[in-house]
Amino acid sequence: MEEIITLDYGSGGKKTSQLIEEILLPAFQNDALGALSDGAVLSGEEKLVFSTDSFVVNPLFFPGGNIGKLSVCGTVNDLSVSGGIPKYLSLSFILEEGFPMDSLKKIVASIRDTANSCGVQIVTGDTKVVERGKGDGIYINTAGIGFLRCPGLGTDRIREGDAVLLSGTAGDHSTAVMLARDGLLSEGGVVSDCQPLHLLAQKLFELGPALRVLRDPTRGGIATTLNEFVENGPFTIELEEEAIPVKPAVAGACDILGLDPLYCANEGKLLAIVSADQAQEALARMRSLPEGADAAIIGQVSTKAPGRVLLKTSFGGTRILTKLTGSQLPRIC
Amino acid sequence: MEEIITLDYGSGGKKTSQLIEEILLPAFQNDALGALSDGAVLSGEEKLVFSTDSFVVNPLFFPGGNIGKLSVCGTVNDLSVSGGIPKYLSLSFILEEGFPMDSLKKIVASIRDTANSCGVQIVTGDTKVVERGKGDGIYINTAGIGFLRCPGLGTDRIREGDAVLLSGTAGDHSTAVMLARDGLLSEGGVVSDCQPLHLLAQKLFELGPALRVLRDPTRGGIATTLNEFVENGPFTIELEEEAIPVKPAVAGACDILGLDPLYCANEGKLLAIVSADQAQEALARMRSLPEGADAAIIGQVSTKAPGRVLLKTSFGGTRILTKLTGSQLPRIC
Repeated sequence: MEEIITLDYGSGGKKTSQLIEEILLPAFQNDALGALSDGAVLSGEEKLVFSTDSFVVNPLFFPGGNIGKLSVCGTVNDLSVSGGIPKYLSLSFILEEGFPMDSLKKIVASIRDTANSCGVQIVTGDTKVVERGKGDGIYINTAGIGFLRCPGLGTDRIREGDAVLLSGTAGDHSTAVMLARDGLLSEGGVVSDCQPLHLLAQKLFELGPALRVLRDPTRGGIATTLNEFVENGPFTIELEEEAIPVKPAVAGACDILGLDPLYCANEGKLLAIVSADQAQEALARMRSLPEGADAAIIGQVSTKAPGRVLLKTSFGGTRILTKLTGSQLPRIC
Repeated sequence: MEEIITLDYGSGGKKTSQLIEEILLPAFQNDALGALSDGAVLSGEEKLVFSTDSFVVNPLFFPGGNIGKLSVCGTVNDLSVSGGIPKYLSLSFILEEGFPMDSLKKIVASIRDTANSCGVQIVTGDTKVVERGKGDGIYINTAGIGFLRCPGLGTDRIREGDAVLLSGTAGDHSTAVMLARDGLLSEGGVVSDCQPLHLLAQKLFELGPALRVLRDPTRGGIATTLNEFVENGPFTIELEEEAIPVKPAVAGACDILGLDPLYCANEGKLLAIVSADQAQEALARMRSLPEGADAAIIGQVSTKAPGRVLLKTSFGGTRILTKLTGSQLPRIC
């Protein structure tokens, strides 16, 4: 008989202990977690970065990843774009009664492998179980602590003439998830870009103050993140549509699905604003790593239309890119 | 028309910004959160404690608290029993489409008030929205960082003859929530003990190595937590049933509901193991604060039955208290 999650696993009693001891502890062995107390004791340093995300992606498994890998990458990437070296993660599950134990094991294995590949430790956690129909299989929250290595990143550093860099192709994650959700898994081989970006970020930290601001453009996509960079300020971001890398399969799938890659979530891309004189250096640094192989300079900072993001289209026109309105893609991450 | 949560609020676009700017930021103003980036930069110290919990309590509002207050107390208390001074919290919502905005505002206000009362700052957060029928109104995750003030707490410190202290009455939280769930709100005036325990813990930190281990007995109750203290080890905990404080209204409600207060979750009580010679001092310290007014010495450590918790009943018998089996009370926190 297939093993499934029952409400017992959330009771705090024997079944909860069993879940922790048989599935979670073996996956995430370390001294802090092994103490099995309510909190983890960690070695700290002078300045910390701290971030959290909950993950509700549907479907749970998609080409290029699953909710487990995503839940590690998401927080590792948030810590990285905040100027931190990711160190510790917390991990919390909300499981729906009836969820297959086998799926949980696969997800836990992904979490373990991804955390190991990033050098982060899962040091504390929690598991709750809700009744059938009150969840959707599994929701995951991670929170992360990193040590600050690149202080001062922020939109207040942006200056006229700065370059806008994107570390790779736009829209891969949303498109892969939407195709998987619609059962079109084989459609064109679109794969999520879900990957950790800590090494790519650290390559850029070395640029010092020439690195203005970093962000991973997830929900709302590149268009929304760039708007957040300049909104309510004196600067404009002018993008060159032709310079923005988009995989042909993603462009094709977006056409079919009625999506715009510039508003699609990425889960393995960095947007960076860099001073003009360091733009080529930043580009070379990105391209020196596999996760930045398709990096490109996609635009620059001006004062043409304060607070706006402008797109120079392939046809020679210019249009305003606003923030995402409405919910283009619910439960994409 | 009643304002409700729609999927738009989880899009990462304009509605998400609106939720953050109109409801969340005004509630939790601080510089780290105000930067509105993906992670918070924090001042750290040498050693940290880190903890997380997800909260799925049903109903969301109950006598003595709500899911918001609970989500702050839960993590503040986990940090406190880990020997930490709670400093920073992350806050993540999983909202169900259709959730009333008014309820969200009440919950956010509770989170703000409770965090303020504990001197902790909400410094980073996340909001996701799932479709109707894929959640249950609101689930909350908090993760917390504290500075380690009382190193070395742990079950390895326990010695024969040590005293077992409970900071107040048993079973208030579970009982209040179960009565509220059954629509028996007025039954006997049972109120959850949901409260922050950081000050009570800090009073005990001053005992130094005489303080062996601290825990807040939530899911699984006092019986389960005490089993965790001694399982697989050489010691026994012997409890005096008559010494364990239980409010008459809670005892009565437990009779009606078929619950055992020793297995009911508490959300505002500490269990402490203290060396025999400091037991009275520890008791006096607990009772010096309102949240410890009903504190009692409820048992002691022996070697009578290694790894077991024994209860000497009011009738003169002795029975073994095992860990909770099954799920006495799903979604109690």
